[in-house]
Amino acid sequence: MSFDVRTQVRFAHVDAAGIVFYPRFFEMLNGAVEDWFDQSLGCHFTVLQKVHGLAVPTVHLETDFVVACELGEWLDIRLEVERLGEKSVTLSFAFTVAGERRLGGKVVLVCMELGVRRARPWPEDLRARMQSALVGTLDA
Amino acid sequence: MSFDVRTQVRFAHVDAAGIVFYPRFFEMLNGAVEDWFDQSLGCHFTVLQKVHGLAVPTVHLETDFVVACELGEWLDIRLEVERLGEKSVTLSFAFTVAGERRLGGKVVLVCMELGVRRARPWPEDLRARMQSALVGTLDA
Amino acid sequence: MSFDVRTQVRFAHVDAAGIVFYPRFFEMLNGAVEDWFDQSLGCHFTVLQKVHGLAVPTVHLETDFVVACELGEWLDIRLEVERLGEKSVTLSFAFTVAGERRLGGKVVLVCMELGVRRARPWPEDLRARMQSALVGTLDA
Amino acid sequence: MSFDVRTQVRFAHVDAAGIVFYPRFFEMLNGAVEDWFDQSLGCHFTVLQKVHGLAVPTVHLETDFVVACELGEWLDIRLEVERLGEKSVTLSFAFTVAGERRLGGKVVLVCMELGVRRARPWPEDLRARMQSALVGTLDA
Repeated sequence: MSFDVRTQVRFAHVDAAGIVFYPRFFEMLNGAVEDWFDQSLGCHFTVLQKVHGLAVPTVHLETDFVVACELGEWLDIRLEVERLGEKSVTLSFAFTVAGERRLGGKVVLVCMELGVRRARPWPEDLRARMQSALVGTLDA
Repeated sequence: MSFDVRTQVRFAHVDAAGIVFYPRFFEMLNGAVEDWFDQSLGCHFTVLQKVHGLAVPTVHLETDFVVACELGEWLDIRLEVERLGEKSVTLSFAFTVAGERRLGGKVVLVCMELGVRRARPWPEDLRARMQSALVGTLDA
Repeated sequence: MSFDVRTQVRFAHVDAAGIVFYPRFFEMLNGAVEDWFDQSLGCHFTVLQKVHGLAVPTVHLETDFVVACELGEWLDIRLEVERLGEKSVTLSFAFTVAGERRLGGKVVLVCMELGVRRARPWPEDLRARMQSALVGTLDA
Repeated sequence: MSFDVRTQVRFAHVDAAGIVFYPRFFEMLNGAVEDWFDQSLGCHFTVLQKVHGLAVPTVHLETDFVVACELGEWLDIRLEVERLGEKSVTLSFAFTVAGERRLGGKVVLVCMELGVRRARPWPEDLRARMQSALVGTLDA
């Protein structure tokens, strides 16, 4: 039910202390959400924008940074649907390196109509696919 | 007691939906923390690093994004010391535009020794200055 | 005739070697171009986009990086109009610190219609203001 | 003899005009150079830094941006060694999408000693591997 991607810590991510500058983690997280939309929900961000006229801005974010990440490390990013609202979705996320938790938290995305910049209900097919990814969903 | 800075939304901050891409807010927030260290605590990040051998990585972050921000808008960023620990400090922050709250939250920074990358107590003078900036401190 | 702005090297700009990661210089350069449009040409990027339906993408760039820039340094950025074409403008730029040249080069911007993404002639008033900023223009 | 990598245009790369903001291309280019060092030269940036005490700052850059790149597109980045100096290397680069040239140019990197921040000759093994990647090298 979870969605997993890998990404590597790049020179562009690292600060003067030799560790990832934390805003860069959110660029990576946003990339993972893009991949989730594309690969799991069957709706690349370009389709979301151009076909549906939608965007998914972040309205809430909380993160614990547990262990610093260094240049060259491979980060496993896991996303899980924690709560599915009519117009929003709450994802929990975790970044691990070889199984060690480096950071994690949750992020709330809202379904927004691009033209008017107002929240609206998820399109039915997107919602159905998110629903089936919901953690704890019983298959029986 | 609070610390205030202004910054403008730049083309580099804005996404395809015409609003600030949220990781960019944390670059701005980090800039505000730099200014706070420099202007209020009397300790620019370069001094912190080169003289004290310290860095202040973020260990916790939570944010509510209330209203989107657009290219050209001037953001007033306010920082307040909410809690001062032996080795950490909790800041609350708010970004407003002409008094309207756009985003806000809190961020926890830790005093880290650069060489060993381990938390350590704040240097006495830094701690004293943070203490005096603590919200709710009685002056009498 | 030249346009000058100052900006400070931030923690977000600096890499593991303790110096500005070069793509960050172009974020600063773009910021200087925004300020030039706003303050000298009287046309903020938001007006350019929303009123005129235009953008000014970069089509050519060349840069020499002479001396590295460090955290906390104040950079003086100077822009000069070197050549004004019907649909493009060539700016030379220099970043100095206390008069010492750190980097410099030239950048060519094109006047692009947002809808069709095609080059078009500069609006008359913009062109006239760029013309008057042209280096070497005789006033007599 | 050339080195090729692929990367996808992400939401984080794209500006308000819906196309890649040009400084992001240089983050991608830097990533390609990292991969080249790691995969072709057998020397990941972390080894370069921690074992050799070296960095490879960019001292010259020139780029033509031919066609804009959009969200979701897959960019093929090709690097070629154009000239190998005692203390520097000139790479030509091209970004294409399905064979169509989008941007290209050249970049000059210098071998720098991290401690003193001064150029120095390439380590012998690195130099030998770069030499063998030189465009136009005769194998016979």
